[in-house]
Amino acid sequence: MHPRPGEPAPPGLRVLADDPSAADQDAYKVASTQAAKGVAVVTTRQGRWDHAVTVTDLLSVSYDPPTMLVSLYELSRIADVVVETGRFALSLLSDAQAPIADRLGWSGAPLVGLLDQVPFFRREPDAPAVLAGSLAWFELRVAEVHPVATHRLVVGRVVAMGSDASPGARPLVRWRSEYRR
Amino acid sequence: MHPRPGEPAPPGLRVLADDPSAADQDAYKVASTQAAKGVAVVTTRQGRWDHAVTVTDLLSVSYDPPTMLVSLYELSRIADVVVETGRFALSLLSDAQAPIADRLGWSGAPLVGLLDQVPFFRREPDAPAVLAGSLAWFELRVAEVHPVATHRLVVGRVVAMGSDASPGARPLVRWRSEYRR
Repeated sequence: MHPRPGEPAPPGLRVLADDPSAADQDAYKVASTQAAKGVAVVTTRQGRWDHAVTVTDLLSVSYDPPTMLVSLYELSRIADVVVETGRFALSLLSDAQAPIADRLGWSGAPLVGLLDQVPFFRREPDAPAVLAGSLAWFELRVAEVHPVATHRLVVGRVVAMGSDASPGARPLVRWRSEYRR
Repeated sequence: MHPRPGEPAPPGLRVLADDPSAADQDAYKVASTQAAKGVAVVTTRQGRWDHAVTVTDLLSVSYDPPTMLVSLYELSRIADVVVETGRFALSLLSDAQAPIADRLGWSGAPLVGLLDQVPFFRREPDAPAVLAGSLAWFELRVAEVHPVATHRLVVGRVVAMGSDASPGARPLVRWRSEYRR
């Protein structure tokens, strides 16, 4: 049974204070970039404005019923709009879409012209945009929102989905703060 | 503005019923495998028993305070033990750890000898095991549990962390139901 007397401590051990210091937070930021993640774009629409931001913090929660989760920064405009409209879409990016991930990687980007250079589809006039060329896309209705620390966990039921992947397309992956193929 | 008259519908469109059919669920299962995901092992300890299972559904929620989330099948034994003990660890696997991902990939694996072939560390006698050679590992205290559909979203505060990655180690990634490097 570990640890036995004389056994080494866990490697690189850092114990966090109950009220973590700025140094604890910085160390966590670096460590958390070791998680490889697929890259997606969250989209939502309010009135005539499309909002879109690149994210990596999403997951599939359940098949029954089809349910997904995305974690959005609580103070971001897109989090407000997703909650207000109750609708959003997730487009899973291929490695060919790395320029789109860069373009939409900043949640404060101006709305005017946001999707001008980004090919997209829309299922109906008020529906969120889904990005052309995505490995898969999902349109969702907000089912639950759980505020946790600095973020909101937005749980959505899948109402429509599809795929526009080219043959041989592979996922865009983010690891150690860089996009990878 | 899309859709314009005569524009194509979103590619591969499937609209799900309010009460999704088995075919809807199967289509979602396939589509959701298009999300590339890093691979981790969740561990927890109760009495003298170590529980461990390979997961891909985890994310970093916040730096302030350091907070992570893992989605566990509601009927799994490990979900019960994580909630009962309030403690768990996440070890982010490198591509060299693919055999461990396979070995621990089944939540019903027998507990006796579960970690016999898996090198690990433990911070203190009751702490969850952390896997040697992981890109990064995090020990957490359960902060919140949200049941959603067939799963429980377990939110944890990071209490300790570390890294045991070899130089040049790269993440193990799962995509389209297969492990990739």
